[in-house]
Amino acid sequence: MSGVVVQNIARADLATIDGLAHCGVATVHEAQGRIGLMAPYLRPIYAGSRIAGSAVTISAPPGDNWMVHVAIEQLQAGDILVIAPTSPCEDGYFGDLLATSAAARGCRGLIINAGVRDVRDLTEMGFPVWSKCISAQGTIKASLGSVNVPVVCAGAAVHPGDVVVADDDGVCIVPRPHAADVLAKAQAREANETTKRARLAAGELGLDLYKMREKLAEMGLKYG
Amino acid sequence: MSGVVVQNIARADLATIDGLAHCGVATVHEAQGRIGLMAPYLRPIYAGSRIAGSAVTISAPPGDNWMVHVAIEQLQAGDILVIAPTSPCEDGYFGDLLATSAAARGCRGLIINAGVRDVRDLTEMGFPVWSKCISAQGTIKASLGSVNVPVVCAGAAVHPGDVVVADDDGVCIVPRPHAADVLAKAQAREANETTKRARLAAGELGLDLYKMREKLAEMGLKYG
Amino acid sequence: MSGVVVQNIARADLATIDGLAHCGVATVHEAQGRIGLMAPYLRPIYAGSRIAGSAVTISAPPGDNWMVHVAIEQLQAGDILVIAPTSPCEDGYFGDLLATSAAARGCRGLIINAGVRDVRDLTEMGFPVWSKCISAQGTIKASLGSVNVPVVCAGAAVHPGDVVVADDDGVCIVPRPHAADVLAKAQAREANETTKRARLAAGELGLDLYKMREKLAEMGLKYG
Amino acid sequence: MSGVVVQNIARADLATIDGLAHCGVATVHEAQGRIGLMAPYLRPIYAGSRIAGSAVTISAPPGDNWMVHVAIEQLQAGDILVIAPTSPCEDGYFGDLLATSAAARGCRGLIINAGVRDVRDLTEMGFPVWSKCISAQGTIKASLGSVNVPVVCAGAAVHPGDVVVADDDGVCIVPRPHAADVLAKAQAREANETTKRARLAAGELGLDLYKMREKLAEMGLKYG
Amino acid sequence: MSGVVVQNIARADLATIDGLAHCGVATVHEAQGRIGLMAPYLRPIYAGSRIAGSAVTISAPPGDNWMVHVAIEQLQAGDILVIAPTSPCEDGYFGDLLATSAAARGCRGLIINAGVRDVRDLTEMGFPVWSKCISAQGTIKASLGSVNVPVVCAGAAVHPGDVVVADDDGVCIVPRPHAADVLAKAQAREANETTKRARLAAGELGLDLYKMREKLAEMGLKYG
Amino acid sequence: MSGVVVQNIARADLATIDGLAHCGVATVHEAQGRIGLMAPYLRPIYAGSRIAGSAVTISAPPGDNWMVHVAIEQLQAGDILVIAPTSPCEDGYFGDLLATSAAARGCRGLIINAGVRDVRDLTEMGFPVWSKCISAQGTIKASLGSVNVPVVCAGAAVHPGDVVVADDDGVCIVPRPHAADVLAKAQAREANETTKRARLAAGELGLDLYKMREKLAEMGLKYG
Repeated sequence: MSGVVVQNIARADLATIDGLAHCGVATVHEAQGRIGLMAPYLRPIYAGSRIAGSAVTISAPPGDNWMVHVAIEQLQAGDILVIAPTSPCEDGYFGDLLATSAAARGCRGLIINAGVRDVRDLTEMGFPVWSKCISAQGTIKASLGSVNVPVVCAGAAVHPGDVVVADDDGVCIVPRPHAADVLAKAQAREANETTKRARLAAGELGLDLYKMREKLAEMGLKYG
Repeated sequence: MSGVVVQNIARADLATIDGLAHCGVATVHEAQGRIGLMAPYLRPIYAGSRIAGSAVTISAPPGDNWMVHVAIEQLQAGDILVIAPTSPCEDGYFGDLLATSAAARGCRGLIINAGVRDVRDLTEMGFPVWSKCISAQGTIKASLGSVNVPVVCAGAAVHPGDVVVADDDGVCIVPRPHAADVLAKAQAREANETTKRARLAAGELGLDLYKMREKLAEMGLKYG
Repeated sequence: MSGVVVQNIARADLATIDGLAHCGVATVHEAQGRIGLMAPYLRPIYAGSRIAGSAVTISAPPGDNWMVHVAIEQLQAGDILVIAPTSPCEDGYFGDLLATSAAARGCRGLIINAGVRDVRDLTEMGFPVWSKCISAQGTIKASLGSVNVPVVCAGAAVHPGDVVVADDDGVCIVPRPHAADVLAKAQAREANETTKRARLAAGELGLDLYKMREKLAEMGLKYG
Repeated sequence: MSGVVVQNIARADLATIDGLAHCGVATVHEAQGRIGLMAPYLRPIYAGSRIAGSAVTISAPPGDNWMVHVAIEQLQAGDILVIAPTSPCEDGYFGDLLATSAAARGCRGLIINAGVRDVRDLTEMGFPVWSKCISAQGTIKASLGSVNVPVVCAGAAVHPGDVVVADDDGVCIVPRPHAADVLAKAQAREANETTKRARLAAGELGLDLYKMREKLAEMGLKYG
Repeated sequence: MSGVVVQNIARADLATIDGLAHCGVATVHEAQGRIGLMAPYLRPIYAGSRIAGSAVTISAPPGDNWMVHVAIEQLQAGDILVIAPTSPCEDGYFGDLLATSAAARGCRGLIINAGVRDVRDLTEMGFPVWSKCISAQGTIKASLGSVNVPVVCAGAAVHPGDVVVADDDGVCIVPRPHAADVLAKAQAREANETTKRARLAAGELGLDLYKMREKLAEMGLKYG
Repeated sequence: MSGVVVQNIARADLATIDGLAHCGVATVHEAQGRIGLMAPYLRPIYAGSRIAGSAVTISAPPGDNWMVHVAIEQLQAGDILVIAPTSPCEDGYFGDLLATSAAARGCRGLIINAGVRDVRDLTEMGFPVWSKCISAQGTIKASLGSVNVPVVCAGAAVHPGDVVVADDDGVCIVPRPHAADVLAKAQAREANETTKRARLAAGELGLDLYKMREKLAEMGLKYG
């Protein structure tokens, strides 16, 4: 099943994608029913990025980054590369040259369940990466993988064209068909939270704001 | 034994607490005989904080943060929340709304043997957290736990009202009854270190400063 | 075999060492045939350092930093301490006093397959450390180890006087006899990469730049 | 998306399933192109089992095994339970009472990306389990999950009715539509291996059997 | 606070202890409200043991087993050694000579948050051990620790004289004052489970046995 | 530096090797001064083996087992294969066909800092393996590595022809030039331990046997 490059994938519209980026991972994840989160061992190489984009997926052999070159040709502005090795790997698949090439095509960042290198350069370029580790260990170009096939990356199922949302809290996948609906729910949550934040900041307790006291008493909570 | 909220706990005086914060974790840990350190996998969400406060403890079910709301009502200015799940968990129990509420009551920070989220907001607020991981995964409000009971958090035993000291080196617990004594010892260490630092900076060797040469020779150290 | 301090070790010349630092870990590692990299769990305590130096090695018992004092006397300007505990350990062997003493002798940094502490002070001093973890847990001075003997540190074999290169991508060991040759190869790689970077930035694809299309087709890659 | 129980799922026929069990995980995984393997941290609670069955999947909240009771009603003879918590969890979701109930319905075993308990009883019953860990920590029955929905379990995507193959080498998922084809390929591999095994046992070298010498020389392998 | 040996500790009576061993870890842990479980990374060196005994605790420096000799003198028949290093350690503190000595005093086994060695000999002797790892790495006898002081071992608080229950499911600590009460509750659970096991084995569903259907419907579970 | 096969390596004599096997890992490791132990995460695939042999080393790319075929030709009776991937890998490099081939040449077992598969077959054949994990994930044959070059495997430096000793306690490397000397020391330890074991079994305390009481008192140990 490897050795395939799917060239035409559907993408969500950029307004929806950008709206999801603005909401952030925690809100989006809640809004879509707490699914689609990648494992928390994926960490950003620098703090402060908040991006969303369409997934261009790569299923790659361990220690072999040949398919990344293939995938870059498939990138459109607003895309995010998602690399899932076929077995556990910590090698540095991606560095400043690939980032330069991807950025030239409008790629917004990289999610990789393996390692990345040249992180100082990537940081200076402002090319954000969420990775399993940082490793200078290079890779080879000997075996085929596939581009734009469904993958499992860091515990989350990703289809090409799904919306990837990533920030300091992690990485969440929104299936493309649900993107608009999830955005609407995420924005509703945000509006709701603004009010609550103000009341909590003013000293009101969550116990009162969320009317929890009665339920807690009923459950048997005892104050001593 | 869960479902209990202890409302009146003894706390150390704030001058002692603030003194311990000033000394920092490494010095305090040495001063009290190298006990009370939490496991080093607890890491701050941002660098540079150095705090101390009285522990308000939470024993919480995995993936359930209901008791955090209960605990916030118990907070006084100068307190630090300490959350210990009853089984290993990486969910994000705590985010910017809870931080807003806790900060409104004078809480100085959070220690949690689980995950935290909204870390960009928490960083902007200056609300420091030491956690096992960062995760956008939310929690539910379905089961009781307890507030202000003794817990084991990241390998350290914590009683409510113990002094929590936390900085970039980690988190250390000073039992409340020993706080003043430990502060005195920590300050003595600091004074002592200032002199040593100057001598070492001037090029004097630790071998001479600490008079180690004779003992090393006696133990059989050979120079070749 | 412990209890030995080797005093006279050969070192590479500083121009070579400084050249390797300038190339950085990823380039040096590639240039010497992808060997000598330490495990990626070693991380810098702060981002942005890029150093190289001659290894002064320490084989130390777990939880015992006595030999660090012994090793500091052996330091020359341009050296880097490499500490390898004889069994897995996370204790904080090294803090600001030792760093002050090492820096006074011209030491450029520390590589340690264990813990470090006082990281805020070390950061302020600009003394870079790559470590397995950060831990306030102190160590004792009870048992001998050895200085300037061959060690295995975080998966890499290190001989005293080997060149240590370290930056945000990790730590790589260049055997001293190969240092000049590796530097030449690393500089050739750098020159080569500058051209490629410009072409990739201009939008040329790696598929074309590296002439990969024919080989991929031959291997059976299918576009759909 | 939780709170759903899908009752009618398609299953592969038992002859195909049993054929896959006989081939074993390593052969089946090769035969289907090296995809579908769960992470190797899943280990059997006792050695020597080799099973296959139709996946009845459970998406469960962390620390909550209520849906296991719901799923057991959906079990048919020849099925295997596959439990994927929605966030990382090590609690013991499953013990001897649930195994008794599942076995009474013909369930062949359990795959769980979390903990299991009563392992001595399960071993005596001959009820095989592949789990992330063994833990006596119990779970609650407070929140809904879903049964027979697609899940990601230990890094592998699983659809209800897919064939689960498990033995001492791990756990592999064969998508139901491919099961017969994969079986044919796996059996072909087995036949092929029998001959090779005999030749290798007789002392013939793989270098000759697989005609590798020429290719290795061409690649530049040097004997010294 | 180290360097102390407490000689007179209270112990639970042996009938209670033996009753708890018979119930096993999972049942005892449930009976006392799901507290006191050690982390599941502690594993038995061989399967099939089920023991209980009074904790004789050891707080030991990393890589130093001197206090084990001191603790052995404090052992009485029916005791279990509990070793908690003061910082993370994987060395093999304990082997066949110490086991021979401990067994000669009636010790029933060892719980250690570190390594053990000579496991083939220990298995042949039938001396059960629950440990973090198996390691041939020896330890030294250079520093004091303490015997029969409160410790935290693998995440559980242990006081000397507490009842340790250990089997293939892990290790649970029952505070001595609660031992008789916990035993009564554990035995009640066991009686209750016997009936349920028979009904489940006969094919009755947990959904009916525990009357879950109505609650699930009320929560919104949907069958499709 | 890869792509080399060293054909003539020196080996220790078989009587020495077999003597070391008889002493076992813990004793040999002590006898040679506590060096040369591999990390404890390497575990045997079945309990009860105790072997020693001459190391035939393999430096292999991640996920590529081509060099194993090359190495098998270099095997002599009494050898042990030692496989060290050049970057972290969990794939199953070795299974029953390779074991059949290696056993046909008198190979005594395998040490691998990666995965192994077909473990049920290997267990039935009595071919012992110490590995990082068990994984059905196969490997490719695309890149060269080297045979009989120095490697670092699981934290230990191994030269071809060094003596590998492995049992349930782990794996230890004895440098070939020291093998006879280490054997003599190991046998002396064994003789010494036989007497001690008898005295401890008879109830004599280590405190008396090793005359520790005076030193402990001098160090300040207090009995309370």
